[in-house]
Parts: sequence; structure tokens; C-alpha cells
Amino acid sequence: MSRPAATHVSRVGVLGTGTIGGAWALHFLRMGMDVVAYDPGPQSKEKLLAMVDHIWPTMEKLGLRPGASRDRLSFVDSLEALATQVEVIQESTPEVLDAKRALFAQLDKLAPAEVVIISSTSGFAMSDMTTDVSGHPERFVVGHPFNPPYLVPFCEVCGGKQTSQDVVDWTTDFYEAVEKKVAKMTQELPGFIGNRLQEALWREALHMVKNKECSVEDIDKAIAYGPGLRWAIMGHCLTYHLGGGQGGMAHLLDHFEESLEAPWTRLKAPKLTPELKKDMVDGCLSQANGASINDLIQERDDCLIRIMQTLEEYRQEHGIKR
Amino acid sequence: MSRPAATHVSRVGVLGTGTIGGAWALHFLRMGMDVVAYDPGPQSKEKLLAMVDHIWPTMEKLGLRPGASRDRLSFVDSLEALATQVEVIQESTPEVLDAKRALFAQLDKLAPAEVVIISSTSGFAMSDMTTDVSGHPERFVVGHPFNPPYLVPFCEVCGGKQTSQDVVDWTTDFYEAVEKKVAKMTQELPGFIGNRLQEALWREALHMVKNKECSVEDIDKAIAYGPGLRWAIMGHCLTYHLGGGQGGMAHLLDHFEESLEAPWTRLKAPKLTPELKKDMVDGCLSQANGASINDLIQERDDCLIRIMQTLEEYRQEHGIKR
Repeated sequence: MSRPAATHVSRVGVLGTGTIGGAWALHFLRMGMDVVAYDPGPQSKEKLLAMVDHIWPTMEKLGLRPGASRDRLSFVDSLEALATQVEVIQESTPEVLDAKRALFAQLDKLAPAEVVIISSTSGFAMSDMTTDVSGHPERFVVGHPFNPPYLVPFCEVCGGKQTSQDVVDWTTDFYEAVEKKVAKMTQELPGFIGNRLQEALWREALHMVKNKECSVEDIDKAIAYGPGLRWAIMGHCLTYHLGGGQGGMAHLLDHFEESLEAPWTRLKAPKLTPELKKDMVDGCLSQANGASINDLIQERDDCLIRIMQTLEEYRQEHGIKR
Repeated sequence: MSRPAATHVSRVGVLGTGTIGGAWALHFLRMGMDVVAYDPGPQSKEKLLAMVDHIWPTMEKLGLRPGASRDRLSFVDSLEALATQVEVIQESTPEVLDAKRALFAQLDKLAPAEVVIISSTSGFAMSDMTTDVSGHPERFVVGHPFNPPYLVPFCEVCGGKQTSQDVVDWTTDFYEAVEKKVAKMTQELPGFIGNRLQEALWREALHMVKNKECSVEDIDKAIAYGPGLRWAIMGHCLTYHLGGGQGGMAHLLDHFEESLEAPWTRLKAPKLTPELKKDMVDGCLSQANGASINDLIQERDDCLIRIMQTLEEYRQEHGIKR
């Protein structure tokens, strides 16, 4: 048997069916695939069925792919049964390094060599999890989702030292084929990308609360009614590209270099070298893809209004005051 | 003359009419107020009128208050004329400390004592800007908006050492009366709140690009299709409250204490003391306002779908690929 094309996977194994694994099962079901689930925990089947019951209406709201059905979920009662019935495995077991090492060593012996094994880990490098894999470490790769994976599109794909580039590429293509937005990483970075960014913000927030500089409510208000409103539209860098006026990111970096020296967070900034400036500017221009600053401002403003109005409607419908 | 009730301001002075000052003028016009503008720069009147022309349709989309009209914008040609015709002044001149000091000293002599003077500064503490104010430093206060202030609701109100609590309270009430979401600060913190949070994220992003750990595109994808999607809904802390499962923030802090030690960002975390834990948990419960974890999950998921769908529609309508 050979590995299917990344765009033609029809049968996915979900290993571990807690919050994250269950969410993956829902996502793959919505994408019109067969999902085979295995979790050795007590009543795992009942719990997953209850989760599918609860969340399926949300999947319907989001839109099902042709052929998608919750009836395409099945359960098996052994790792071997899972490993031999599926084209790819998404592993989402508890974050315990030794347990993952033992699991991967066993899984490697059971699953045919062409089956790609993707770990949802948010904490471990694949190189550290495959230390006991003797057969085919090249088909193990991290595919880290954000909660809840049945909704949030972003995933980070990151291979270990022994992972083949083919597997990294295949996994990226597979995720993109199921509507994920993927960052394909070239090195094993602790916290990957998304968690590093939100962890920096989170730690600054914890410092501020600890020092009584502001309240938890202030932090959430600052994000939800401030920068957080803009971040769903075009991320942080492209948002700042607009903040630089017609000069974009280049102007912003020249103009606000001083603020990088200011004690505006406890994190020290890197030195703004000409190379870093060029990388930031080029990255913004490449994303802008020909759109002028005015085009981007129009997009930001139109989308801000849509987001604010849809959230305001929801809050009014549900009597939410925050 | 006495200061009007914060909820009954009808005539606002806008001092400095660049990107931020002009945006404030638009916001106050939309709120149904008279706006008197002054900016000594070349062609400032023409530039502001062009900005109002360009942005007014956006104000109409957002919804005008009864009586709101762009015709209620007028210009004066001196600081004195501005200072003597309005009930409150929003200052948004360039971020140059000496210039603000001189301006505030002069403004204090011209404006009646009851007129509150609010500075849009993102960088300076009010205590540093009123060093040359001899008359009424108690009526000077920072009211820091986020770009663009005609759309983004969040503002930080922060008095200096000489600012009266009355003025801090009045400014908070005034902003809330014009649909702003306000954090009323109790100390002068460099970067205030919102910029500290986004600056931490921004500096981590700059480090990552500098070290070739990821691309600018990866960062924007990580935010816009990852945590950024959730932040508009309920901020960072309450989002994490959900991440802790049924145990909420309390469970999350116990469970993820280890990750605070991990090198997931270059910023070191504070020690998670029992007091800090309690403050984080209480802050989340207070915001949840009786809503269960399941209620909040439903809210997050429903709102995520609305945000994703509205953004996807917009991108499709406008052929935006990002």
C-alpha cells in the first residue's frame, strides 16, 4: 500500500478522544471523512458520542462537506485495530513525555510504514518523542491545533530531526485540504509560533495583575475591544503595516523604533537591524499582495464594523454584558 | 460656568487633527456632538475635511446618533478660540514631550478651569506633561485610544499625580457615554495596558523573525486564524478560563503552571502565588457573571462562526487571498 495523495485522504485515525482528539474527530467528520477512534480511557466511546451530539449542530452551522455524516465515526478497541485501518493518524493523548515515547514506539511497530502519524502536542518536540522509535521515525510529525480544532483553522506543522521533508510537506497539504491554515515550520521551536505569541501576552498580563497595575477585567477589555478586534482580520504585522500610514511597516519601524526601547512590556526587544527591518517590510508587502495602504484600511474598517456588529447582536440577543 | 455632566457633553474641542485627532473628530460627530477643531499645521482644515469625506460613509454604516451631522464640524484658527468655545478638549498633537509641556502650560492659561483636557498620548505619563502647568493641573488626564478611534472602542483613562479623581471619573463617564469601553487606571504605567499586551506579542514576533524561526506571514496567520479569532469575543483571560475545561481558570493555572516555566517566549513569567491565582480566578468569575463554562463555550463557538463567516464572505467578495 502506498500513502494516499494528501488531498485524497478518506479515512483518518483519531488516537485519544479528549477535548482535542474529540474536536479533531468532529472536524474530520465535517470534512466528509471516515473517522476511526481509539482511546483506552474509561467510557471514552460514550464521552465522544456525547461530545459529537453536543457539537454536531455547530458543525452543521459551519457547513458540512458533501458526504459528511456523524455516522461515519467508528470505534475500535485496540491500538492495533486503529493502526491497521486508517491512512493517517492524529494523536491527541495526554501531554506526558514518557507516555508519548512508549506509545509512538508501539505505534510504529503496528502501523504500516506509509501511515503518517501526526501529534497534536503543544509542548514537546517530535525529536524528543521519537527517541524509542526504531522503525520509521521519518513519518512522525507535529500538527499542533488551536482550541477548538473543529473551529479554529490555524495549525503548526513541525518535524523532528528524523522527520522527512516529504512527511512535513504531505501533512501541510493534508491540513490545507481540510481547510486548515498552516505554518510549516523549519525548526523545532519551544512553544512553536502561536503559543509563543500568546504566551508573551499572557505572561505580561500575569505580571500586571500580580503587581496590581490593572485588573483581569481591564486586560480582557483591552484585548476584546482593542487590538483583539483587529487581529482576526489581518494579524499583527499587517495591522501595524497600516499603522505606519502611507509609509507602511517601513515608516512604522523608523517612527516607533524608540518605543522598542521603552519599558512598555517586561520583554526586551531585539535590535532593529537593517536586515530585520527588510524582512518585516518584505513580509508585509508580500501579504498585501498589491493592495495599497488605503485598500487595507478599507478592508480593516469594513471588517471591524462587521465583527463589532455581529458580536453586538449576539450579546444583545443573549443579554451578555461585558 | 460649571463642568457639564459627563453624559451631557455637546461641544468637544479637537486639538491636533492628524490620523488620531481626525478620527476623534469623526467619532464625536457620529455621537451627535458639535466638534470644534484646531491644528496649526499647513492645510490642516482641508486635510481634515478630506478625511471626513472619506470616512463619513463608514460612520453611516456604523450608525449615527440622532442629530449627528458632519456639518457640525467647525474650525478655529487659534488655541484661544478653541479653548474658550468647548466643554472638553481631546488633544492629539505629535508625540514630542517638550512640545506637549509647552502646549499644556499655554492651554491651561486659556481654557476655563472646569474644562477637562484629555491627551491621546500613547507614550507619556500625564505627570511628565504637566510639569509647566501652574494653574489647574488637576483637569489634565490621559485618554488613550486605539487606532482607528472612530471604530475601536477601547480607551485607557489614566491621571497624573496631580490629576483629581473627579476628573478621572468624569472622563471615564464621558467616554462611556460616547460608547467607548474604558479601563480606568489607578497608576501611571508605561505603555498603559493595551500597548503593554500587544508590545509583548510584537517583541516576541520581532525576535522570531530576526532569528529566522518563522516568517512574517506565519506570525500573521498564527494570529488571524488562531488566537486572534477568539480574542475579539472575550479577551485573553476569559478565553483561557474556557481552556481549563469545567474547572476553568483555577484548573488551567494548576495544570499549565509548568508551561510558565517553559521557554515558550523570551519573557519570564511571574511566580504563580496563591494570591495571583485567586485574582485571576476571581477576575474570570466576575466577568463570567454567572455564565457556566458550557455557556461560555457556546458563546465562543457561536461568535467564532459568525466572525469566520463574515470575514470569509468579505474576502470572497473582494478576492482577498491571505
